[in-house]
Amino acid sequence: MSTAYDDLMAFTRETEALSQIAGRLGWDQETTMPRGAAAQRGEEMGAMESVLHARRMDPRVGEWLEAAHADGDEATAHLRHIRRAFERASKVPGDLAAELARTTSVAQGVWAEARAKDDFAAFAPTLERVLDLRRQEGAALADGGDPYDALLQDYEPGATAAELDAMFGALRPRLVDLRDRVLGAPEPAVLSGTFDESAQMKLSRQIAKVFGYDMSRGRVDKAVHPFSSGSGNDVRITTRTNPIDPFNCIYSTIHEVGHAAYEQNIDQAYLLTPLGRGVSMGVHESQSRIYENQLGRSRAFTGWLHGQMTEAFGDFGIADPDAFYATVNRVHRGFIRTESDEVQYNLHVLLRFDLERQLIAGSLDVADLEEAWNTRFEADFGYTVDKPSNGVLQDVHWSVGLFGYFATYSLGNVYAGCLFEALRKAVPDLDAQLATGDTSAATGWLRDNLQRHGGLYEPREVIERACGFAPSEAPLLSYLEAKFGAIYGV
Amino acid sequence: MSTAYDDLMAFTRETEALSQIAGRLGWDQETTMPRGAAAQRGEEMGAMESVLHARRMDPRVGEWLEAAHADGDEATAHLRHIRRAFERASKVPGDLAAELARTTSVAQGVWAEARAKDDFAAFAPTLERVLDLRRQEGAALADGGDPYDALLQDYEPGATAAELDAMFGALRPRLVDLRDRVLGAPEPAVLSGTFDESAQMKLSRQIAKVFGYDMSRGRVDKAVHPFSSGSGNDVRITTRTNPIDPFNCIYSTIHEVGHAAYEQNIDQAYLLTPLGRGVSMGVHESQSRIYENQLGRSRAFTGWLHGQMTEAFGDFGIADPDAFYATVNRVHRGFIRTESDEVQYNLHVLLRFDLERQLIAGSLDVADLEEAWNTRFEADFGYTVDKPSNGVLQDVHWSVGLFGYFATYSLGNVYAGCLFEALRKAVPDLDAQLATGDTSAATGWLRDNLQRHGGLYEPREVIERACGFAPSEAPLLSYLEAKFGAIYGV
Repeated sequence: MSTAYDDLMAFTRETEALSQIAGRLGWDQETTMPRGAAAQRGEEMGAMESVLHARRMDPRVGEWLEAAHADGDEATAHLRHIRRAFERASKVPGDLAAELARTTSVAQGVWAEARAKDDFAAFAPTLERVLDLRRQEGAALADGGDPYDALLQDYEPGATAAELDAMFGALRPRLVDLRDRVLGAPEPAVLSGTFDESAQMKLSRQIAKVFGYDMSRGRVDKAVHPFSSGSGNDVRITTRTNPIDPFNCIYSTIHEVGHAAYEQNIDQAYLLTPLGRGVSMGVHESQSRIYENQLGRSRAFTGWLHGQMTEAFGDFGIADPDAFYATVNRVHRGFIRTESDEVQYNLHVLLRFDLERQLIAGSLDVADLEEAWNTRFEADFGYTVDKPSNGVLQDVHWSVGLFGYFATYSLGNVYAGCLFEALRKAVPDLDAQLATGDTSAATGWLRDNLQRHGGLYEPREVIERACGFAPSEAPLLSYLEAKFGAIYGV
Repeated sequence: MSTAYDDLMAFTRETEALSQIAGRLGWDQETTMPRGAAAQRGEEMGAMESVLHARRMDPRVGEWLEAAHADGDEATAHLRHIRRAFERASKVPGDLAAELARTTSVAQGVWAEARAKDDFAAFAPTLERVLDLRRQEGAALADGGDPYDALLQDYEPGATAAELDAMFGALRPRLVDLRDRVLGAPEPAVLSGTFDESAQMKLSRQIAKVFGYDMSRGRVDKAVHPFSSGSGNDVRITTRTNPIDPFNCIYSTIHEVGHAAYEQNIDQAYLLTPLGRGVSMGVHESQSRIYENQLGRSRAFTGWLHGQMTEAFGDFGIADPDAFYATVNRVHRGFIRTESDEVQYNLHVLLRFDLERQLIAGSLDVADLEEAWNTRFEADFGYTVDKPSNGVLQDVHWSVGLFGYFATYSLGNVYAGCLFEALRKAVPDLDAQLATGDTSAATGWLRDNLQRHGGLYEPREVIERACGFAPSEAPLLSYLEAKFGAIYGV
């Protein structure tokens, strides 16, 4: 190893450590921070971001990268990650980066107010400004290539809109058809009554352990929005409780445990290095979704869960495990992406993916966005958006400039479909295990074949290596059609 | 204002914000961090310290200081603080600073192990190394002056060992005499039975509010050691519970609220500036001690507390408020400084102050420290140390290099004595108010006359301004002799 490589890695390790600190502050802000500390915290976070930004752009990094020699796969991967981040930071003019930071920090508040008032026009000028800045950034990053593809790289290195468009284009008609058939069938029972919230948290903590979450290197707290935060040996999750909907708490927990287990299971040798965190948003989402859906919402696992819920809450009115399975997997008309079911979820994402590409390309004006949203929604969902807070104003993402992010949700689902097909072959008695609340073979297979690698391989490559085949939307579609065809008899 | 001043202040503000983040990590470590995260956290803290260290030594600070023009008292005070920190950082050779950081980070573990084994010899070589490095540092900081005085400046700017020695020299014989008389008198009743720990926390939170702690800008959690952390609008405290000793929880809380209220009550205009934190350890301790002792352990306040405890815990066996007052203020034989009472506490500190000056001056060898400790302890306390963990090994301070720190505990008590004398004159009906659980006049007087100034004045000056007279040990002595003379009839 050259000295330049060692110096670069020492510097990078410190940067990674600082970045973990910034993440911890985010956790604190959502869980424990006193409300009167908000303004001061904003300034503290700003100082931290400015330190991180200066380090990412530090000219020494460029010099080290030029002089560094990579010996072996891991060193090559390290340099790939460091070079990508350095080039990204260097390509964006300082004025533009500062203006983006300023604008998006205000835009989120404008969006929240417009959503509360159900008034898209109140948000439109701000969205236009954010969009314009991100288009400029995309152009700066693209070096003459496609700006949207350039933005995608922040979340899913190596992905292109064309490749995603092919996948999603194949998903859409069959999901619309499945949605149509399922919503035409009789609905399963819904839960009724109330469920003690501390019992929900207790059960969720137990389930988190069942899915392999290491509590000695993490913790579960309540927050307004469920999230997972941190890498390595300090990976914390949050969940939430609702007295009439224990599934919200349970499946939010399993989803976040998927994210958190990925981070916890990365090879300890990669701790505080560029390889020491999940490799992309899409791969991350594949873990949260396979834990939550393919495993957690399976007939086998819900059979076990039914028993646990009866123990925790007593008789709650659904005595038959098959009926319980249908209730857990109930497909319902609804406008909100985050409250959606497995059948309709990707339709929400595909809508956003198509609209935001048009926004970035300039073929759709912000002024026409609300109408475009509503038209597309009706076409894919078969029912009509009643108000902007149930439509174009529902997600925070665009207000903070996250163009290119939504696609990773559906890509994660596609990857989860592929991984589940491979997992089923690798663990033939999976259902028998899940039926006893034992996920260890499944989560162990994911750990050994995917999670432990962290950032060693590129996103698509790590999925292909784990599955043994090139990822496509086909396994997800077969899984969804078989599962919901059976539940709904369609 | 010159541009150099503005640049310097902008840079300093960012440094202060980063330093608040480092403090928050410390809080997290003691309250919420998963235990498996310890090693990773050590590296994260190290990265943060290295950023802070580089900023304190940044050559631009020297240039700005040279060019900056101070307009008015506040700007002058800002420059004084910034110059002091810059010169301190610049005077210590980098090698020495690094070696100190390395050595003290290991030394704490060695000390903890030696204490657990009650084996001073196992700690002595490490202590010798830490002492040697701090002597070198003191010499580097002293510029030919006294090394111990130079070390004192880290905790109590402007203080000298000679001035403290005169104060403490006057305290010692009268405290020894008072201790002798009190321990010869019949002991008050002790608490018996157990006290529900969640009720202790609830009562402590209520008392924290009674003392003016702003919960919207702070929070109370449990930790192994009580502490206060943070400045401005995010000032958190911890306390602890012991089922058989509710006073531990209650008075730890009041003590930490004294520290925290000081930070919370500093003028908001000073937020995230060098004036935005308590000015010295001694002045800080004056606030924690006057809240805890002169106010919290007064006959008037304990009368109110007696009613609150009866409400919280039911009849706990001490029905008479005068007996309760004596129990709260019970003086007992004991070896541990942190568990000591108002009469003996300063004797613990004075012992350490005298021994550590000899260690730094080289007139006492580490090899002879245990014997010197035990001899002095017997002389001042009248009873004999039974084992090193009850003697020379009880405090963590020296292991991490905190020579010069202990003195600020007694200086704080001396200052609290002075402030209480002035406060009594300013609030003639203080007792009537405290008897109803109303501390607002007392804590308001401290806020307006001292706390709000933050770092505007030098430590001794801010005390003198608040009191209207030059600080001395006399008020503390009169207070202690009158109070304990009355309780014990001696």
